[in-house]
Amino acid sequence: MRNFDELRDRVIRFRDERDWKQFHHPKDLAISITLEAAELLEHFQWRSREEVATDMRDPARRSALADEMADVLILLLSAADAVGVDLYEAALEKIEKNARKYPVEKARGNARKYDRLDDEE
Amino acid sequence: MRNFDELRDRVIRFRDERDWKQFHHPKDLAISITLEAAELLEHFQWRSREEVATDMRDPARRSALADEMADVLILLLSAADAVGVDLYEAALEKIEKNARKYPVEKARGNARKYDRLDDEE
Amino acid sequence: MRNFDELRDRVIRFRDERDWKQFHHPKDLAISITLEAAELLEHFQWRSREEVATDMRDPARRSALADEMADVLILLLSAADAVGVDLYEAALEKIEKNARKYPVEKARGNARKYDRLDDEE
Amino acid sequence: MRNFDELRDRVIRFRDERDWKQFHHPKDLAISITLEAAELLEHFQWRSREEVATDMRDPARRSALADEMADVLILLLSAADAVGVDLYEAALEKIEKNARKYPVEKARGNARKYDRLDDEE
Repeated sequence: MRNFDELRDRVIRFRDERDWKQFHHPKDLAISITLEAAELLEHFQWRSREEVATDMRDPARRSALADEMADVLILLLSAADAVGVDLYEAALEKIEKNARKYPVEKARGNARKYDRLDDEE
Repeated sequence: MRNFDELRDRVIRFRDERDWKQFHHPKDLAISITLEAAELLEHFQWRSREEVATDMRDPARRSALADEMADVLILLLSAADAVGVDLYEAALEKIEKNARKYPVEKARGNARKYDRLDDEE
Repeated sequence: MRNFDELRDRVIRFRDERDWKQFHHPKDLAISITLEAAELLEHFQWRSREEVATDMRDPARRSALADEMADVLILLLSAADAVGVDLYEAALEKIEKNARKYPVEKARGNARKYDRLDDEE
Repeated sequence: MRNFDELRDRVIRFRDERDWKQFHHPKDLAISITLEAAELLEHFQWRSREEVATDMRDPARRSALADEMADVLILLLSAADAVGVDLYEAALEKIEKNARKYPVEKARGNARKYDRLDDEE
C-alpha cells in the first residue's frame, strides 16, 4: 500500500529538518514547479512522436524522466502545504468536475475541448 | 487513509472511459504539465510576497489554486502512466537523493544550492 | 541605427549556414521559447523584489540576464520565420490593440486587468 | 526600414503613458514572459508535426500565433528596459557566441548539442 500522506509527510519532514520553510514563499514554489516542468519538457524537445516512442524504451531515459517528474511532484506537495491546500482532495474533486465537463458518451474518442464537443467532426 | 494508487487509478479510469489514451503522447502531456504549471504561476503574477500572504487567507483564492494544483497532479499521473514511470517510487527516491545532496547539518537554514553549501555567508 | 530586419537576417543566416531549417518545427521552437523563458525566470527564483533590485546593480548578473533574453529573442525570430509571421508588424499591431484595451485615462497608474478598469479601488 | 529602437520606444511609451513602470518588477516581467511563451505553446498542444504544418496554412491561426509572439516580444523589450539590458546588442553577441559554439563545418545538418558535435551518428 502506498500512502499519499506518508509521501507528503516525507516531503515536509525533509523541508523542516533543514529549516527551509522560511524560504518556501508560495510565489517561488509556483516558479519552481514551472521550472521543473520545463526541465521535464526539455527531454522531448526536437523529438518527433516516433522518436519519443523509441526513447521511452530506454530505461536510462525513463529514469531521467522519473527524476524530473519526481521534482514536480515534490514541489507540488511543498506548494500545497505552503498555501494550505489538500492536494489529494483537490485532485479527486477535479476529476469529478472534469467528468461533468466531459461526459463519457460525448467525449469518447473525441479530443475536442469540452465546450466544442457537439461540433461536427 | 488516502491511497496514492487509488488516485492514480481514478485518473487512468477517467482517461480510459473516454478512450483518450490514443491522444496521450508523452510530449504533449509534458507540454500540458508546463501549461498547467503556468496557470498556477499566473495567480502570483504582479503580487508581492506580502500581497500573496494576504491572498492566501481568502478561501476563494485558495480554492482556485487547489484547482490548478490538481490539474498539474492529474497530468503528472497521466504522464507517468504514459511513459511507464512509478511516480510514487520516483518521488521517494528523489527525496533520498536530495537528502544526500543537502545533508541536514550543512543545509539547515541555508538556501544555497547544494554545490555551494560550503561558501561563506 | 539598429535595423530589426538585419537582426532577423543574421538569425536566419546562422540557421541556414548550418542547414538547421529541417529541425525547426514550429512546435519545437515554441517549446524552446518556453524553455529559454524558464531559464530567464530561474535567475529570479527565491529572490525578493528588494534582492532583485540589488542583483540588477551587478554587471555580471545583468550580463547573464542579457544572455537569456537574447536566447528568447533569437528563438522568437526563428519561430516567426518558420510560421511566416512578420514579428515587427505583429508587435506594432499588438501595441495598438493594447492601447485600445487600456485607454490612458482609465489605465493610468492602475494595474488592473482591462476588463476590470472600472472596478472600485 | 524597420527600426528596432522605434519599436522599443513605442513599448516604453505605452508603459509610461499609463504610469506602469511602478508595476514592472523584473521578476514579474520574467514571469509574464514565461506565461506568454506558454500561451504561444498552447497552440501546438496535442498537434502532430503534420497537423501543425496544415494549421500554419490557415491565416486565422497564423494571426493568432502572431498575436502571442508579439506579446512575448513586447514583454521582452519591457524586461530589457527594466533591468538595463541592450537587447539588440545582446542578441548580436549571442549569435556570435553561438557561431563559435557551433562551427559551420561541424554543425551543418547536425542537430546535436555543441558539446557532442564529434559524437558518432
